[in-house]
Amino acid sequence: MAASQTNQRIDAKRLWDTLMGYAEIGATPKGGVRRLALSDVDKRGRDRFRADCEALGLTVRVDAVGNMFARRAGRDPNRLPVLFGSHLDSQPSGGKFDGALGVLAGLEVMRSLNDLGIVTEAPLELINWTDEEGARFGRSLAGSGVWTGDYPEEQILALKDVEGRTVGESLDAIGYRGPEPATRFPADAYFELHIEQGPILEREGKTIGIVTGAQSQIWYDAVTTGQDSHAGTTPPSARKDAMVCAARIIDLVDRMMRARGEDGRGTVGQVLVSPNSRNVIPGEVRFSVEFRHPDSAEVDRLEAQFPREAGFIARDCGIDLQLTTLFKYAAQPFDPSCVELVRQGAAKLGYPTRDIVSGAGHDAVYVARHIPTAMIFTPCKDGLSHNEAESIEPSEAEAGCQVLFEAVVARANRTL
Amino acid sequence: MAASQTNQRIDAKRLWDTLMGYAEIGATPKGGVRRLALSDVDKRGRDRFRADCEALGLTVRVDAVGNMFARRAGRDPNRLPVLFGSHLDSQPSGGKFDGALGVLAGLEVMRSLNDLGIVTEAPLELINWTDEEGARFGRSLAGSGVWTGDYPEEQILALKDVEGRTVGESLDAIGYRGPEPATRFPADAYFELHIEQGPILEREGKTIGIVTGAQSQIWYDAVTTGQDSHAGTTPPSARKDAMVCAARIIDLVDRMMRARGEDGRGTVGQVLVSPNSRNVIPGEVRFSVEFRHPDSAEVDRLEAQFPREAGFIARDCGIDLQLTTLFKYAAQPFDPSCVELVRQGAAKLGYPTRDIVSGAGHDAVYVARHIPTAMIFTPCKDGLSHNEAESIEPSEAEAGCQVLFEAVVARANRTL
Repeated sequence: MAASQTNQRIDAKRLWDTLMGYAEIGATPKGGVRRLALSDVDKRGRDRFRADCEALGLTVRVDAVGNMFARRAGRDPNRLPVLFGSHLDSQPSGGKFDGALGVLAGLEVMRSLNDLGIVTEAPLELINWTDEEGARFGRSLAGSGVWTGDYPEEQILALKDVEGRTVGESLDAIGYRGPEPATRFPADAYFELHIEQGPILEREGKTIGIVTGAQSQIWYDAVTTGQDSHAGTTPPSARKDAMVCAARIIDLVDRMMRARGEDGRGTVGQVLVSPNSRNVIPGEVRFSVEFRHPDSAEVDRLEAQFPREAGFIARDCGIDLQLTTLFKYAAQPFDPSCVELVRQGAAKLGYPTRDIVSGAGHDAVYVARHIPTAMIFTPCKDGLSHNEAESIEPSEAEAGCQVLFEAVVARANRTL
Repeated sequence: MAASQTNQRIDAKRLWDTLMGYAEIGATPKGGVRRLALSDVDKRGRDRFRADCEALGLTVRVDAVGNMFARRAGRDPNRLPVLFGSHLDSQPSGGKFDGALGVLAGLEVMRSLNDLGIVTEAPLELINWTDEEGARFGRSLAGSGVWTGDYPEEQILALKDVEGRTVGESLDAIGYRGPEPATRFPADAYFELHIEQGPILEREGKTIGIVTGAQSQIWYDAVTTGQDSHAGTTPPSARKDAMVCAARIIDLVDRMMRARGEDGRGTVGQVLVSPNSRNVIPGEVRFSVEFRHPDSAEVDRLEAQFPREAGFIARDCGIDLQLTTLFKYAAQPFDPSCVELVRQGAAKLGYPTRDIVSGAGHDAVYVARHIPTAMIFTPCKDGLSHNEAESIEPSEAEAGCQVLFEAVVARANRTL
């Protein structure tokens, strides 16, 4: 059995200094971070992470897609490791905390365990997943998705960025195509600390979000096709305006979301108009549509209703609508025993909490399909993320890291 | 008095061959034309036009903004010239006939007058206006607008293309900054033949549109500003989705247009979404709004109603809306006596006609503010224009040219 769990505190100042130090790697003028997966900037982050881990006596392994695993031995060599981590890559105009908080809080957990002289029963592994964001190569959760077996390794290695460079070439270029196979190994649990990326915790004054699972999602590509024509000369009866039709479908998405109350999500984030000239009635609009809901049955209903209702709108507009389903995920509940450890850790420390469902995709969502998993959310200012203005308080980072510490140590020391 | 006006026929085959010949200058693989104003391709068109005019004995003058005037002497040196023409520049992916028809039918009128041995009482001037499209430097009707005094010459000369090259530099580069002042000179009338750029004549089986004037127009720049945030995590109550608000305003524009029946025009042709990422609720949308109507009073009403109703929508969405009026034109009626000459010419030739109001901007609209003006429209296939698929029949070009001939000769020979 490890040392007593009372009065074991992570070093909040060291954690914050580490967060700020890594934020200088790829820092943007507006206070954000641009650390695209497998770029030279990402390499600098990875190099520093490896050095920081090795300085703690951890053993760092890199797999064939660049996922990094920093292992701390446990007392019992026969126990499966407890995993925790997140990702160091960022959006093109990202913030300092999305991903980095989970990795660097994990580093602080390792440092504090060393400082406190604690050896857990099970080994621990801190993970930096490759390319969570998908911002450069177009596939999010790339590293964790290969590791879990959800993505074929060759497919991910062949993805290209806008300049035509593949993931494989980029791994080689920065020296992070590692010798380990990029396949899942047996593990006891996975914990991930992340900023909420939404406004709920902040609005309700909660310090810790106990993440009970991830939403169900369905994503579409939509194309409305009408006919380009002159804006000044084409009378109403002759118009086939693809933008007016798209606009009515965008309104529909919002109404279908709101009909489901506060748990619904429905968004058209990307709209590409052709020819996109003031003087020309748009002949084609390509746009994204996505719905999310904690309850898979609601997404099933949206899947049944949305194409039909959008089709009615298109028919009324005299416009051709093509809807392509990109993917549909069922809701992913997290492991009750892992979630309970997060709840107990937060309760022990006296933090105000709230159960919450993850609206974003996270490496933990893929991992949860195979390994008992839970996540910890901490608030972020104004709910902003994927934005250079992303901001959290040092006390929030501390709280999240402390709960991560509690959950990881409790899991690693549990009685089997 | 000139020769009898009976049995004076233009040469339809020569006209068509000329149209096809000029269409090779800047021809695109899809059968259209890319002849951007003051480009090297435009220079080739201008050089050929000058040569074709000089071959007829016409005197070609070029003014300080590159407008070209090819003069044919009349019998009475004291009479003011009758002007006619259009423009040889095109949209980036334009068609063979928008503009070129008016210039080259004018050339055919000159050729036929020579062939028929007709000398008109008044002198004639065939015009190729500079940069009607505004596609390269962002200001349409640039050449005619300077000539009429509606645009300051220095302002137009200083306009830049996307590469930073000014109109003045571009005129110099192709040798078309002419010695003549770019100012209006006294003239008796102006006629312009143009494709309709809309579907009305084709749909009704009319060969000639007798253009009685130009629509009133109002153009806006609109910006909706909300807040970027994560599409998966931001609940309905916390969303400030600039795209949903813009979509409802786009729907409003269409409804306000349709409320005015077949004469109404209302279009959102350009939509720019920020950050335009699938996963992010749009924080800002910039879009164009324009309304047109033959009756200025309707545009006045739209000007009063649209900002108010769009403002209500924005308020309901919790979104900031900024509307900037780019310009507002009153309807521009054409000169009744000139319109009557078009009507008589078409009647004499037995063409099915229809009175029509121009929905597009044309050089004739600026000229009409100062000089008695009329326009002749001919059908175009499916109403398509500003499009490489723009298409007309040889018989339609012939009819338009023949009516232009009739109107010009009648005006030039009228009894004063």
